[in-house]
Amino acid sequence: MSGGKEFPDRIPAQPSVEGLLDALKYDGDGLVSVLVQDANDGALLMAAFADRNAVRKTLETGLMHYYSRSRKKMWLKGEESGHTQKVVSLAVDCDGDAILAKVQQTGGACHLGFRSCFSFGLEKDGRVKVIGEKLFDPAKVYKK
Amino acid sequence: MSGGKEFPDRIPAQPSVEGLLDALKYDGDGLVSVLVQDANDGALLMAAFADRNAVRKTLETGLMHYYSRSRKKMWLKGEESGHTQKVVSLAVDCDGDAILAKVQQTGGACHLGFRSCFSFGLEKDGRVKVIGEKLFDPAKVYKK
Repeated sequence: MSGGKEFPDRIPAQPSVEGLLDALKYDGDGLVSVLVQDANDGALLMAAFADRNAVRKTLETGLMHYYSRSRKKMWLKGEESGHTQKVVSLAVDCDGDAILAKVQQTGGACHLGFRSCFSFGLEKDGRVKVIGEKLFDPAKVYKK
Repeated sequence: MSGGKEFPDRIPAQPSVEGLLDALKYDGDGLVSVLVQDANDGALLMAAFADRNAVRKTLETGLMHYYSRSRKKMWLKGEESGHTQKVVSLAVDCDGDAILAKVQQTGGACHLGFRSCFSFGLEKDGRVKVIGEKLFDPAKVYKK
C-alpha cells in the first residue's frame, strides 16, 4: 500500500523470470517480504525476507530460499534442519513488495521447535500466551 | 529468524501493554510487519507495517491500525473506504518483529478492489495471473 506504480502495471508484456524479478519492489536493502502458509490448512508458518537471487532460486528449484539479514546471505530453508518447504504456489501483492508462498512443510518451520513462528498469542492487556504446537527439540536439530 | 535475543526471552515478567510494546523488535524505521489473515477461512488478506503507536491503538480499539511509510503516519484500516478489520486474535513470531492478526474483514482488504492484496499468482516461467476475487470498484470507494 505504499506510493509508486502498482505491481500489475509493472508486469512485463513478454513474460520472463528476469522481467518478473524486475517488477518486484525491493526495499532499501534489496529485499521483499515472504509470508509462508501451510498449503494444507492455511496456517501462517513464518515471515522472512528474500533478495532477487533467493526469489530466482525459489522459482528454479521449487524449494523456499530466503535472505538472512543477520548472516547477510541467501539460505535454503531446511539446509541445516532438514525442514524444507516445497512450493505449492506463489503469489505477489498489489505493491509487488511481498510474496505469499503456500508450501508443504517438512518438520516445523520455527527454529524454536514450533510448527509455526507465530506461536505467541497476545492479549489486550499485554499478556503473552504460548499457543504454538512444539514439534521438535531445536538442540537436537541445530547443532552449533 | 534474525540475531539477538528471542521474543520469548523479552516477555515482561509483569504483563503490561507498554512492556509488550517494549518486547517487540522494531526495524530501523521503528516498524514491525503485520500480516493479516481472514479469521473465517485463513486467507492471507494483506501485509503492512505498524509502529509502536499503531500496535497500541490496535490493542486498545480492537480495530487494525497501521503505519503508512509513504504518508508517514498512522492510519486506521478502513478510515476512508469503510473496509475496517476487527481483531479476532493477535500473535507474535519468535523474533518479535512480525505480528499475525486474524480479523473479520468488512469489504475487501486490497485498495485495488480485491478481497486480498495477494491476487497475482506467479508461475515458474515468470508469468503472472490474476487470481484474486474483485469485490469493489476502487474509483467509487476511494474519492481523491
